[in-house]
Amino acid sequence: MPLRMSTLFVRTLKEDPVDAEVASHRLLHRAGYIRRSAPGIYTWLPLGLTVLRRIENIIREEMNAAGSQEVHFPALLPAEPYQTTGRWVDYGDDMFRLKDRRDNDYILAPTHEEVFTLLVKDLYSSYKDLPLSIYQIQTKYRDEARPRAGILRGREFIMKDAYSFDIDDAGLKASYETMRQAYIRIFDRLGLEYLTVKATAGAMGGSETEEFLHPSEVGEDTFVRSPGGYTANVEAVTTPTPEPLDCSDVPPARVEDTPDTPTIATLVDAANARHPRADRPWTAADTLKNVIVTVAHPNGERELVVIGLPGDREVDLDRAAGSGALGAGEIEVAPATDAEIAAHPGLVKGYVGPGNSIDAPVLGLQGSTGIRFLLDPRVALGSRWITGSNQPGRHVFDLVHGRDFTADGTVEAAEVRAGDPAPDGSGPLELARGVEIGQIFQLGRRYAEALGLQVLDPNGKRTVVTMGSYGIGVTRVMACIAEGNHDDRGLIWPQHLAPADVHIVATGKGEEILAKAEELTAALEDRGVRVLLDDRPKTSPGVKFGDAELLGVPTILVVGRGLAEGTVELRDRRTGQSRDLPVADAVAETISFVDARYSELGAQRTGR
Amino acid sequence: MPLRMSTLFVRTLKEDPVDAEVASHRLLHRAGYIRRSAPGIYTWLPLGLTVLRRIENIIREEMNAAGSQEVHFPALLPAEPYQTTGRWVDYGDDMFRLKDRRDNDYILAPTHEEVFTLLVKDLYSSYKDLPLSIYQIQTKYRDEARPRAGILRGREFIMKDAYSFDIDDAGLKASYETMRQAYIRIFDRLGLEYLTVKATAGAMGGSETEEFLHPSEVGEDTFVRSPGGYTANVEAVTTPTPEPLDCSDVPPARVEDTPDTPTIATLVDAANARHPRADRPWTAADTLKNVIVTVAHPNGERELVVIGLPGDREVDLDRAAGSGALGAGEIEVAPATDAEIAAHPGLVKGYVGPGNSIDAPVLGLQGSTGIRFLLDPRVALGSRWITGSNQPGRHVFDLVHGRDFTADGTVEAAEVRAGDPAPDGSGPLELARGVEIGQIFQLGRRYAEALGLQVLDPNGKRTVVTMGSYGIGVTRVMACIAEGNHDDRGLIWPQHLAPADVHIVATGKGEEILAKAEELTAALEDRGVRVLLDDRPKTSPGVKFGDAELLGVPTILVVGRGLAEGTVELRDRRTGQSRDLPVADAVAETISFVDARYSELGAQRTGR
Repeated sequence: MPLRMSTLFVRTLKEDPVDAEVASHRLLHRAGYIRRSAPGIYTWLPLGLTVLRRIENIIREEMNAAGSQEVHFPALLPAEPYQTTGRWVDYGDDMFRLKDRRDNDYILAPTHEEVFTLLVKDLYSSYKDLPLSIYQIQTKYRDEARPRAGILRGREFIMKDAYSFDIDDAGLKASYETMRQAYIRIFDRLGLEYLTVKATAGAMGGSETEEFLHPSEVGEDTFVRSPGGYTANVEAVTTPTPEPLDCSDVPPARVEDTPDTPTIATLVDAANARHPRADRPWTAADTLKNVIVTVAHPNGERELVVIGLPGDREVDLDRAAGSGALGAGEIEVAPATDAEIAAHPGLVKGYVGPGNSIDAPVLGLQGSTGIRFLLDPRVALGSRWITGSNQPGRHVFDLVHGRDFTADGTVEAAEVRAGDPAPDGSGPLELARGVEIGQIFQLGRRYAEALGLQVLDPNGKRTVVTMGSYGIGVTRVMACIAEGNHDDRGLIWPQHLAPADVHIVATGKGEEILAKAEELTAALEDRGVRVLLDDRPKTSPGVKFGDAELLGVPTILVVGRGLAEGTVELRDRRTGQSRDLPVADAVAETISFVDARYSELGAQRTGR
Repeated sequence: MPLRMSTLFVRTLKEDPVDAEVASHRLLHRAGYIRRSAPGIYTWLPLGLTVLRRIENIIREEMNAAGSQEVHFPALLPAEPYQTTGRWVDYGDDMFRLKDRRDNDYILAPTHEEVFTLLVKDLYSSYKDLPLSIYQIQTKYRDEARPRAGILRGREFIMKDAYSFDIDDAGLKASYETMRQAYIRIFDRLGLEYLTVKATAGAMGGSETEEFLHPSEVGEDTFVRSPGGYTANVEAVTTPTPEPLDCSDVPPARVEDTPDTPTIATLVDAANARHPRADRPWTAADTLKNVIVTVAHPNGERELVVIGLPGDREVDLDRAAGSGALGAGEIEVAPATDAEIAAHPGLVKGYVGPGNSIDAPVLGLQGSTGIRFLLDPRVALGSRWITGSNQPGRHVFDLVHGRDFTADGTVEAAEVRAGDPAPDGSGPLELARGVEIGQIFQLGRRYAEALGLQVLDPNGKRTVVTMGSYGIGVTRVMACIAEGNHDDRGLIWPQHLAPADVHIVATGKGEEILAKAEELTAALEDRGVRVLLDDRPKTSPGVKFGDAELLGVPTILVVGRGLAEGTVELRDRRTGQSRDLPVADAVAETISFVDARYSELGAQRTGR
């Protein structure tokens, strides 16, 4: 049966939703695909649900073809397995938690590693049962702090999550590669531009992991790529450890008065004016900036940490948090507040020095403050710096890393810049933004160990299973498709994902127009073409065309004035081009046009 | 692609799950269709998910055919609309509640009237937009106190819930009838025995409502039917108000000593022995039993109520609770505890009298105790009773309703018995148990009024919309189908709902057996027949046959010893009958057998 605008549960809107920050949110709302029920929580109207289901089906087909079996877990889960693995704590405020009538703790699951692990433990016991790949397409929950991007980043959202179970590392690698290939097929079939980048594991744990990113200005992820093909999430870019420098010629460190130099720029100016360097002027790259941050650990503990990095680089707290060097799990890292700094008298804001000065009393620097001091890996051993002395208005000059001070460790803290060399030597990096639409993890044995998933190996010995986990943000994928397929008048769906194949606009007075539109609708539906018919009797042509453009069915057939001359008009929503067709050819020509669009996308028309 | 037992994510079990009280729970667990994740919360394994989806699709097709449009709401909803309608309180402990990171109240929705109402208010504004019918197939939550029946009564479950919106009562009636017919088609197509009964509205509110009950011993609902076709949930059976009796000949009420008569039986004996009645012996039906109950109202208030009913009837607290006379919303009614009774010195346990005695001082009865006193409607005006006097060891005789005492109202409190007359005069009632698989409500304007859903009528006047709500317990329907289709060896699915059309058991040694089984599998799959192939290489025939019977695919094809003589064996899991087929005819004969089963069910084979 065709969809009919006269009865379809949809209303288009002229106004953008309040707080909408991205085009997909604005357009899916205005075109009546979704409605907000609460911040980050959406209701799917008929057109939205149709597109969503078509996306899900492509994912389902490819998962099945890759040998993964569909199951379905509850969204409401007991807390206990998540307590066992530590994620009950790691997830912090991001996880919705509740109690049942007997006061037992439950969660709304953000992801299902724990219970998949337990299910396999329940059913399987031998290496002969493996490998196994199982997946679900299911509702997930994550209490985002700032849910303002519609279905791009909701608090209730749909994910496809898959899990692989293998007896050994080689098996895991093979399962991972199978899923990787399935993801490539899925995103190819969806017609979604993407690239794979190295990523960090975050709260998931695990070792090898890649993200599938859809390049987009609205993305929350920054990624890099090099001419030689290196790609990574900016958080996962590693800085090669530089060779130690020869510091035999560096004069001894000395503390100098540098009044009124709270910033790098004022410090460089003062250094050049009053303490010039012999060989060349000082630059910001000669200063060591020591940034005080607060790390909020998942268990609630708050820790001050000082991070040293070259003064010509901004600090990137997401990189620092994602590196794992500041703490495990879902940590939050923020600049320390004045109050937090004031609580440590050893720290003088604007003049903070390295925490672990080897010859602190001589230099007037404090020794260990009890605060962790980490260095960005760019700070080479033997490198020579101007840096704070932990005394107001004074800096230390010619302080050498390894000679005069040490660190408690390294942390990837400096921003990555366009032009930085790729860590694999494949050339200068380019930066861009993207949306994470999928991520694949070689989890390893973390979950199986924590939850006791063992099977008997061929020698009858109990062996811990190794796992992978593989996610696709289904609702987010739909948002990305909308982001990448619209203009200022509305959505423009890829033909194979559109809520209908053809939008027939019946416009103009006279019963014969609507009658012909109905006839063409019936003929197309008979041939398996999905029609959305605008049969509203008292709606103006302007409103009808505006709605057709907003709704975004890519093929539009206008039955109107031309009918008197025996023609209808076929419009391509993507290009804006149109041509008149003899009404007798309309069905065949429309089908041929639609099928060509499917074909371009490597897809086939399947009806509803 | 066929399913293969060698790789299918399923394990059959010999042991029933702990606490399993119903066959569907035991068998779906043992056959590997579902696994418990928490009390009343289940994971769906591949076979279970397949059957569930087939059921969902039948429901979806009929809902669409009835002109209802599919949408999808969140499960996680803000509390506010439920606070506005009062259901935030009414649902009490049955509703899962939680807070988000900003301390806002949320619920896991047990049903969605409020947000459907708000969505229509958001989109629609005119009578021209109506009627509208929208539905979803979605996960619901209800924190059952005693979740022990598997998916028959889970805490996370799937419902189809639909809502109709009309401008007037005639429209609502028409929408209700359309849904009623759709339900009849759905349950007919599912092959599920059912009957429709009048029901009570409970927490939903609304007036006209019917339940679709599946007759089953494991049902929690008791229903009645009469030879003349009256059917009702036992809670909804109304007792016609009897004609007032002539009490002019009844002697004046008097209080008598009746020591040691705490029960009806001892009272009747004592009455006949010491205070005989002139015309005939006293019977239990002459005694008025006054039962003290505690009503727990949804707002947490606990109220003592005394209910009077004939002494020859047991009290049915579910009927009393469902009648609405004790309080609105999801009340809980229980016998009062000794402590609660003791807190009211006016109440003497075992000798409780009517609370509102007209001439209390004369009779020695207490007057109003401040406790509500309600009478079962069977207690006619003018009827004559022996009842408690609120003094230990004393009863009052010849106390006449309306002459000597009154009530604060009536409540349907006496049990319904087989043989009671149907309220519509259609003969004696028969009692049976059933499972509620669907319920349809004429909600009226309760939700629209509370939430301000108004549209302009043809005269431009704002009019409150009238609504219906229509539910089907999808997972519960699957449990009922399993309840009604099994034997002591396992499940026996109706052909059109089974996880596969044919279960091919390859049994016996020799490569040619498995090769032939594979060949037949491929040939059947090519013809759109869904095959589950037992290709496990080292599994005994006994285990394979046992598993086939447990899993319950209704058509079994055995490829085994007979192959040497050129035959395979086709088994009907329902009847246990089998016949040998020449292997050359196996594909055609199997298809013909399967199609005949589909046809008996009014269904057509559709492939996956």
